[in-house]
Amino acid sequence: MKLVTYRAAAAAEGRLGVVWGGLVIDVERLGDVVGEEFPTSMLDLIDQGPDALAALARAIADTDGKRPTGIAVPVENVKMLAPIPRPRKNIFGIGLNYVEHVAESARSLDTSKELPDKPVVFSKPPTAVIADGEPIQHNAAMTQQLDWEVELAVIIGKRATRIGKEDAMSHVFGYSVINDVSARDNRRAGQWIFSKGQDSYAPFGPAIVTADEIIDPHNLVLWLKKNGEEKQRSNTKFLLFDIPTLIADLSSGMTLEPGDIIATGTPSGVGAGRDPQEFMWPGDVVECGVDGIGVLRNPVVKIGD
Amino acid sequence: MKLVTYRAAAAAEGRLGVVWGGLVIDVERLGDVVGEEFPTSMLDLIDQGPDALAALARAIADTDGKRPTGIAVPVENVKMLAPIPRPRKNIFGIGLNYVEHVAESARSLDTSKELPDKPVVFSKPPTAVIADGEPIQHNAAMTQQLDWEVELAVIIGKRATRIGKEDAMSHVFGYSVINDVSARDNRRAGQWIFSKGQDSYAPFGPAIVTADEIIDPHNLVLWLKKNGEEKQRSNTKFLLFDIPTLIADLSSGMTLEPGDIIATGTPSGVGAGRDPQEFMWPGDVVECGVDGIGVLRNPVVKIGD
Repeated sequence: MKLVTYRAAAAAEGRLGVVWGGLVIDVERLGDVVGEEFPTSMLDLIDQGPDALAALARAIADTDGKRPTGIAVPVENVKMLAPIPRPRKNIFGIGLNYVEHVAESARSLDTSKELPDKPVVFSKPPTAVIADGEPIQHNAAMTQQLDWEVELAVIIGKRATRIGKEDAMSHVFGYSVINDVSARDNRRAGQWIFSKGQDSYAPFGPAIVTADEIIDPHNLVLWLKKNGEEKQRSNTKFLLFDIPTLIADLSSGMTLEPGDIIATGTPSGVGAGRDPQEFMWPGDVVECGVDGIGVLRNPVVKIGD
Repeated sequence: MKLVTYRAAAAAEGRLGVVWGGLVIDVERLGDVVGEEFPTSMLDLIDQGPDALAALARAIADTDGKRPTGIAVPVENVKMLAPIPRPRKNIFGIGLNYVEHVAESARSLDTSKELPDKPVVFSKPPTAVIADGEPIQHNAAMTQQLDWEVELAVIIGKRATRIGKEDAMSHVFGYSVINDVSARDNRRAGQWIFSKGQDSYAPFGPAIVTADEIIDPHNLVLWLKKNGEEKQRSNTKFLLFDIPTLIADLSSGMTLEPGDIIATGTPSGVGAGRDPQEFMWPGDVVECGVDGIGVLRNPVVKIGD
């Protein structure tokens, strides 16, 4: 299933929806139709576990061709929020997780040219999250090096500590897309949270595709365009630390929880690694895609004086 | 006021309390006595702002000497939880914020001996929080360099972005104590979240003292003892970046929210900086104190095989 958090009217709250044949089916209203009490938010759905997801899938199938019109809206008529508009904690980011990005970073930033022997973990606060279509803030008083990074996001489904690699994939609820926006000139003695964690630096969405629909998460094309021109293109098969390794590693010390988001790292082609270097400026539009999941499109806008 | 989150019986939920003359006064029950609906958790109280705090202070004063016995419990009879048992986001940590700690870190870790020109920001996930008395986990399969760091914690009271230094102190709800536990051998290409963010690596509490009761937060003695022996002693007047500077700096890019926690950095005397180096091991007991706020005491226990 392709799950979204959407709102049908400007001031309304976000609602949980399923994208189905060009429509967004409202999950709560679908529950009314089938006489079940369905979760009302993405985090509720994740918290309720596989049975809730299965019940929702069954209701979609059972009502196919006979759903009342009032419970679905054409996709183009709704505003998508981030699939999890407010994560319950920091997003976990993984740095330097594609070989050629390690090389370009060593050339242009302050990182080592050696491949890391363990995942390089950093974080973005939940306040950094924005939705598909919302503006990435460019504050020229803060940065002249605002950069892009398309990434596959993994959404965790279950609370657990010290997850074994062999069991790790059963902890994945689904997948999404994140743009790990990074102000390269805002690093602090090598720490990345300030350079990667500012407001609007985590465009996220537009949807979460549930794990059962992704045949092989280690064979997904991901790409990024700035103003229509392709800047990044790779495949998750080139991840240095694959998804089971990331889940095992993070959870070896830090309990993972339902709704946790892991941004798995970006391939080469970031602005800082190009010759000449290129960055994002007000008026630019950045699109991030992961095939089979969706496209996340955000304009860059000026803030501040 | 000295505010705590406590529980009177083993399985009970955490309740908001005020420490007063050797007793913990239950805030919700005090509300029943004075006929007001008081907040039921620390985050509720912070969210409700200065008026709620003033109403609570008034109720404490008005009922002095005539409070029914059922609404208060002797401090020694309750279990303290962390003042905010589950923060809504990562804790913001500040590294290298006392001059002599910059020097000892440069000698023993991989940090620069130059003083930072901007605050060095990192984060700890909310899953790292433990309360006064709860065990710091020592997993020998993960670390042989588990270290201590006593710090003054600043609790933010209001949501805001780009807070001016001159206005910053009005955004402080109160102060507490944090032990910024750090597995020195778990850094990842210089990133600290994994070395500082593991489960139990943020002992926090025992109380939050409201800002009005701290005459000068830049003149507080802070100290740490391991097994009764003093390892750290300094004063917040030696902070390299003071509290207004930290609030202005963090909020220059990242919106601060009610209940956000800033761990302001540790003075010299950490284990990695000693000669010979010393670390924490199962059986050790670590006490962190900030004068006028409280003492946070945690045993170190073995986990894993």
